[in-house]
Amino acid sequence: MTAGRLYGIGVGPGDPELMTLKAARLIGSSAVVAYFAKHGNHSIARGIAAEHLTAAHVELPLTYPLTVEQPVGPLGYEDQIQHFYDDCADSLAEHLAAGRDVAVLCEGDPFFYGSFMYLFGRLSRRFETEVVPGVASVMACSAALGAPLTYRNDVLSIIPGTLSEAELLTRLAAADAAAVMKLGRNFAKVRAALVTLGLADRARYIERASMARQRILPLDEVDADAVPYFAMVVVPSRRSGAP
Amino acid sequence: MTAGRLYGIGVGPGDPELMTLKAARLIGSSAVVAYFAKHGNHSIARGIAAEHLTAAHVELPLTYPLTVEQPVGPLGYEDQIQHFYDDCADSLAEHLAAGRDVAVLCEGDPFFYGSFMYLFGRLSRRFETEVVPGVASVMACSAALGAPLTYRNDVLSIIPGTLSEAELLTRLAAADAAAVMKLGRNFAKVRAALVTLGLADRARYIERASMARQRILPLDEVDADAVPYFAMVVVPSRRSGAP
Repeated sequence: MTAGRLYGIGVGPGDPELMTLKAARLIGSSAVVAYFAKHGNHSIARGIAAEHLTAAHVELPLTYPLTVEQPVGPLGYEDQIQHFYDDCADSLAEHLAAGRDVAVLCEGDPFFYGSFMYLFGRLSRRFETEVVPGVASVMACSAALGAPLTYRNDVLSIIPGTLSEAELLTRLAAADAAAVMKLGRNFAKVRAALVTLGLADRARYIERASMARQRILPLDEVDADAVPYFAMVVVPSRRSGAP
Repeated sequence: MTAGRLYGIGVGPGDPELMTLKAARLIGSSAVVAYFAKHGNHSIARGIAAEHLTAAHVELPLTYPLTVEQPVGPLGYEDQIQHFYDDCADSLAEHLAAGRDVAVLCEGDPFFYGSFMYLFGRLSRRFETEVVPGVASVMACSAALGAPLTYRNDVLSIIPGTLSEAELLTRLAAADAAAVMKLGRNFAKVRAALVTLGLADRARYIERASMARQRILPLDEVDADAVPYFAMVVVPSRRSGAP
């Protein structure tokens, strides 16, 4: 029997219409559709792709065992999460070995800060694997803000908000233009770094870009306790607004 | 009369199937389709979107007046290119004022090192304007290489190959993971910087990602005199291959 193919499919930043034609086609033709989800939450990627799913699809939710990076039980977080990815890969491998194509739905782009890389690392040598790139959140934020990211020779730094404040200061100070991702609980730290560097006026805050509940706020009006993970601060080039 | 709407539409990195559903819909519904092209060359963006164009579309090629940043005539390059963008904006404004929607086709994403920002800057205050994000080349390269760009807390630096070698050395040395764009004639300089920094083994070269003539080569086998503009060097995170 021919093994199935594994697809890592970027479904884009949130608006279902920002999926690619290829993503729509491959979701339609795959027997199994898998997606990561946080415990107790719906999968955002599944929500984006919902209109392309039918009763004929086998759905395979991959539910993270933990809340946000908190160790539970005798094993540390790192061990637990590695076991979880091992288990996910085993579930997918069963379908693939049985000849069924598996589409893993990934918010944004599969290889841009996504969990798909952990399945790719475990399965791509055993099964034919294709990564279908998607519209990344940083591009959706820039489009919604009406703010070009970079001019000419600018270097664009894409910075996870999970870094320490010291590291954020170093990275932001060196950037021509920057996008700070993974905000959520990290927002207050990121805002403090931007204020310290005198970048607060240039920075733009946006949450849920391209989704129904998209919001754009001045940095100083953001409630740091209510920032979702799908929020971003964009610091456009200081040449922004150049002719 | 209601003015038309201006759309900056990312048509993705090359594979026509990597256009978004929204891009396809808005190209279909726009009366006028505009695209930049180099003198004597077909427009790549038009080629990507070709199957969505019909005889009913008014096509508006925006042909750069110059070869590669060479001044011609009494005005310098900078003046000439500003005049060119002024003229382009005037052409689009005529259609918009006459109530016709105008879709500007942009390779990759419109706000990611694209010329659309110069039209946006000239027209978005006068006409209703929407930017439709697209799959950027850097995501297509990463997907085709099977190389995740970033792990966890990595900062991703997107670096134009047009920088000086000294500046390239500084930027590449500071990067956790990097993508060097705009290669073409800049390739030899970029390769030299990577060799100096001991990054040549980790770096991956790809040209025309997702297009029919896509090629992936080891860095030392690339003919520096034959590197197209649509080529990229990706330096994945040193944590690449982590479980």
